[in-house]
Formats: sequence, structure tokens, C-alpha cells
Amino acid sequence: MLIVTHVAPDGDAIGSLLGVGWLLRSGRTLTLACADSVPVQLRSLPGAGEIVADPPAKTWDAVLALDASDTRRLGSPFRPAEYGSTPVINLDHHITNLFYGSLNYVDPSAAATAQIVVALHDAMGAPITREAAVCLLTGLVTDTLSFRTSNVTPSVMATAMRLMECGANLAEITERSLNHKPLNIMRLWGLTLSDLCLQGQVLWVRVTQDMRAKAGAPPDGDGSLVSYLINAPEAKVAAVFSEAVNGEIEIGIRARPGYDVSGLALSLGGGGHPQAAGCTIPGPLKAAEARVLPLLIAAAAMGAGNGTSQRDPQPK
Amino acid sequence: MLIVTHVAPDGDAIGSLLGVGWLLRSGRTLTLACADSVPVQLRSLPGAGEIVADPPAKTWDAVLALDASDTRRLGSPFRPAEYGSTPVINLDHHITNLFYGSLNYVDPSAAATAQIVVALHDAMGAPITREAAVCLLTGLVTDTLSFRTSNVTPSVMATAMRLMECGANLAEITERSLNHKPLNIMRLWGLTLSDLCLQGQVLWVRVTQDMRAKAGAPPDGDGSLVSYLINAPEAKVAAVFSEAVNGEIEIGIRARPGYDVSGLALSLGGGGHPQAAGCTIPGPLKAAEARVLPLLIAAAAMGAGNGTSQRDPQPK
Repeated sequence: MLIVTHVAPDGDAIGSLLGVGWLLRSGRTLTLACADSVPVQLRSLPGAGEIVADPPAKTWDAVLALDASDTRRLGSPFRPAEYGSTPVINLDHHITNLFYGSLNYVDPSAAATAQIVVALHDAMGAPITREAAVCLLTGLVTDTLSFRTSNVTPSVMATAMRLMECGANLAEITERSLNHKPLNIMRLWGLTLSDLCLQGQVLWVRVTQDMRAKAGAPPDGDGSLVSYLINAPEAKVAAVFSEAVNGEIEIGIRARPGYDVSGLALSLGGGGHPQAAGCTIPGPLKAAEARVLPLLIAAAAMGAGNGTSQRDPQPK
Repeated sequence: MLIVTHVAPDGDAIGSLLGVGWLLRSGRTLTLACADSVPVQLRSLPGAGEIVADPPAKTWDAVLALDASDTRRLGSPFRPAEYGSTPVINLDHHITNLFYGSLNYVDPSAAATAQIVVALHDAMGAPITREAAVCLLTGLVTDTLSFRTSNVTPSVMATAMRLMECGANLAEITERSLNHKPLNIMRLWGLTLSDLCLQGQVLWVRVTQDMRAKAGAPPDGDGSLVSYLINAPEAKVAAVFSEAVNGEIEIGIRARPGYDVSGLALSLGGGGHPQAAGCTIPGPLKAAEARVLPLLIAAAAMGAGNGTSQRDPQPK
């Protein structure tokens, strides 16, 4: 059996992939695949070393795709031309899922694909090992930012409790997958937050390679600065403009519920969800800002204005 | 009945105070008291407007003290000389609690005083109204930083689930009580994080009134900066030295599991938990730093060194 998760994997992608692996491995030969490498904060998950980028060309008894709304998102390890009559099972929680499987199990009410995995497994009455629980709780914790997103229902809490009772240490998982903020990233935050820009209801900052050098920070990564910015009550939309090593500008964008930044990201060649999107455009920084800021300001002005006080820091 | 919570109230102090108020008010006359005003992010909790700083001098049938490890922490609304034979009930989850009540219900295994309130109330089999659930879930969410601290057990998740099922909206509560970071507080973070100090394995910053003025920030409050600092893998202990308006220095301290800062805080006239403590000492800043830093460095060196990778951002 081949199990594939999406490119640029996050905690739910890797957590679900490994979790399903632990649940199904007894008596089966499994290949776990992901096009991109496992992010550093997830590498200590049990089984993370077994994930391959390039699965062998062979006849599978089944192909299981996890946490991916379309086949493009699965990248190179997913090669449907080779599958013939092999069943392709599509297991996901994204509302934008395209039902590309021969079997599709898509539940947009789930806060994470890991939650669906637990529900299906529990329906079969099978036990959950500690290894599986650790991986699946990592998926749940990362996709909900520690139970902070608006899709966290009592049943999400019940799933977390179930996984904790199977031996997953919630504090350890949170610490490894979410809290980790090295000193150089904190210094980078210091530099960027000292120069906050508010235009209309758009709060944004620049992260230049100069600032990274000054902070001793690596050439990419910023510890989810944009998810922090959207916490300002003054902002409806938040953005981080990051100068990449190659001179391109990576833009991370967040919006409050009732606002939608997925369309503008899509129009700039990127994509995402209504409240969490991103894109990469040519530099230099000034030109990128001049091009994108009017779009952000328009998105912040076009919000539903539906009076909700909720917002969702980073739906996945 | 008089119900009192501690000075400089946090989410668990106010949440438990109001929650108990909603649970007990039927058929009773209650006075809810706190020496200091309700923090802005908690003012929308139901009943927050009814809390008084100066309860009347009268004969109470009972006095209930919440979330306070000693009577000094209860401040001016707690006047035991007036209580005569009135029972004083001490309900708390701090391990440093001094058992000052005539009845003491102290459970250091609870992640929040709100959790104890729910457990006691459920033992009586009484229903929990939506108002009570909102207040109590606020206590649980703030004291565990959204279920991120190491004292979050399956039973904490069960309590959260129970309160959600009673009508408390977790996302809304998290948004209001934890995520709220006004722009001036973000600017204050920028100024402080630009000047991080690492000495041994102690990471610390200063927050002066000058910095507050420059950031346009209020004279107190910093959006839990110290809880952010302890996320640095380079630190075993983190501290924020804040210059108060009266010139005193308020010190917030965090430690990773395996390290203990409650003793040093106690020795400086403060208190708290092993991983989250605080105190207020005379200024000026330089003198306070000279006095406290050696103690912090000693605490960071005296850790268990038990190889745990866990740390606890902010147990209360």
C-alpha cells in the first residue's frame, strides 16, 4: 500500500501520514511518501525517517492520499497513470477538495485530517498505539494552533483526550511542533516589530536579508510572524513581505473571518484559504509592496462586516 | 457571601470569580471582589462590571478566596480581622498555597482554579449555565495558554469539552483573552526583543516606562512577553523586569520543566509555581537586576538535567 501526503508538508500532513502508517502497518507492507522533506520540528516523530520522496514503480494494492485537496498538491510521488485499477482513497478535511479518488472520504467539519483518521479507526474498534497517538495528536495540535482555531469543536477535544489517553504527551508535542522559537528568530521579531506598518486596516512588516543577518537568523523562516500580526485588533488583514535569497518576495497573508485573501493570492500566482494565503512574486521589495498593498487594502475594506468578533489565526 | 480573587488578576482569577458567581448566585446575595481592575481583554465576560474593589464592612456568612496562595495576594478586599467566626474557604491550585483558610481546598494537580470549580460543582450534580461556562473556560484557556502547559491532562481536556457543551465558544474565548495583542503591545515587543539579554541559560529583557512611552503602550501589561521568551531553546529560565509607575520592579519569571523558580520568587516576597512565578521588589532597575539575576542563573544551573525536552510556557 502506498500512502502519500502533500508537498510542503505541515504537521497534519506528516502527523496523519505517520499515524496511518502506525495504525495499518501490522501485517502489511507500507510505503509512506511525501515530495518534500520533513520540517525540522517534526523530524523526531516516530517513523519520520522512513518517509520517501520517490516511491518505487510497482503495482499497489491501494493508494491512500492524505490531507490534499487536489492531485497537484500531492506532487511527484502521486503517479495515477501507473495505478490502473488500483483503488485511490482520498482522505481529507479541506472544503476545496476535488474528489479525485475512487473512494473519497472528505469531512470539512474536521479540524484536521488526523481527526478523521482517529474517527475512522475508532469506528473499527481497533486500539491506537502510543506511536500512532503521538503522530496524530501532532496533526491535531498543529492544524488548530493548539486548539485556537474556530473549527475546534467538543469532538476535537474528545479526540485529543483519546490520543492523550493512548500515551501521547500533549505538552511535549506542543513544545516540539509549535512553541520552538530560537533566539535569532526572536531577535528578527524584535527588528520587524520595531517597524510595524499600518495602512488602512492592513498591518504589515518587511523581513529583509539585512535584518536576517543582523539578527543572526537563517535565510528563510520567521516563526509564523504573520499569525502573530493578525492578533492586532487594529488589523483585518496582516502580511509579511520576506525578501528571499534569490531576490524574490515571499508574501504570507492572514485575514480575520469575514475577510478573504485567497483570491488575491491566487491572482498573484499563489493560493490558500480565505483566512490564510500566500504567494511569491518578483522583487525588489519596494516594487512588490507597491503592487500588493493596494490589493490587501481592498481585501480589508471588502470584509463582510458581519459583526463577528471571532477570527481564526491560521486555518489549514 | 464574599468571594475574593487575587491582585493583578489574570484570566483564571477573573474567570473563576465570575464563574463561581454565576454558579452560586441563585437564592444568594454575593459580593465579588478584586483589589485591581479587570484587565481590558476580560471586561466583556458576563458579570465583569459587578466586581468591586472595596467590599462593604458587614457580617458575611462565608468568605471564599480564589486562586490565591496567601492572604497578602488577596490584597485590600480581604480583611480577616473583620471576619470573626465566619468560615474562610481557600480554593486554589498553587503548590505554594499556605492553607490560610478555615477550609482549604488546594489541588496543585489542577491546571487552573477554574478546573477545581468545575470538578466541585459537577460533584454536586448541578447544571452549568452558559455564562458560568464562558467564565470558567476563560480561566482554563488563559492559565494553560490554550492547553499548551505541561499540566494539561486528559481531565483538563474533558473539562474544556464539558464547558463547550454548556455553551462556551472556545474560539471566541481564545480570541478575546489570549490572542488580543494591540499594536502598542506589538511595538513594545519590538523594542524589548531588539534588546534580548542571555546570561548563562537565563533569557531576560527590560521593560521601562520610557519604552512604554515610545511604543504608546499603557503603564502596565505586556501581553505575556515572558511566556514567549521561554520558547527559546537557548533558555532554561526567562524573566521580564518591568519598571512600574511607582518605581518598583515587577519581575515575571518562567522556567522549563525540571527547573524551579518558585523558591526564588518566594524568597523575594513573591510566589507562584515551579515553572511560573513572580515578585515585586524595590527599584531602580539596575539594582533589581543585580539582586535577582544571580538567583535566576543559579536556578537555571540547578535544573534536574533529567533530559526532558518538555517545557511549560506559563502554568499559573
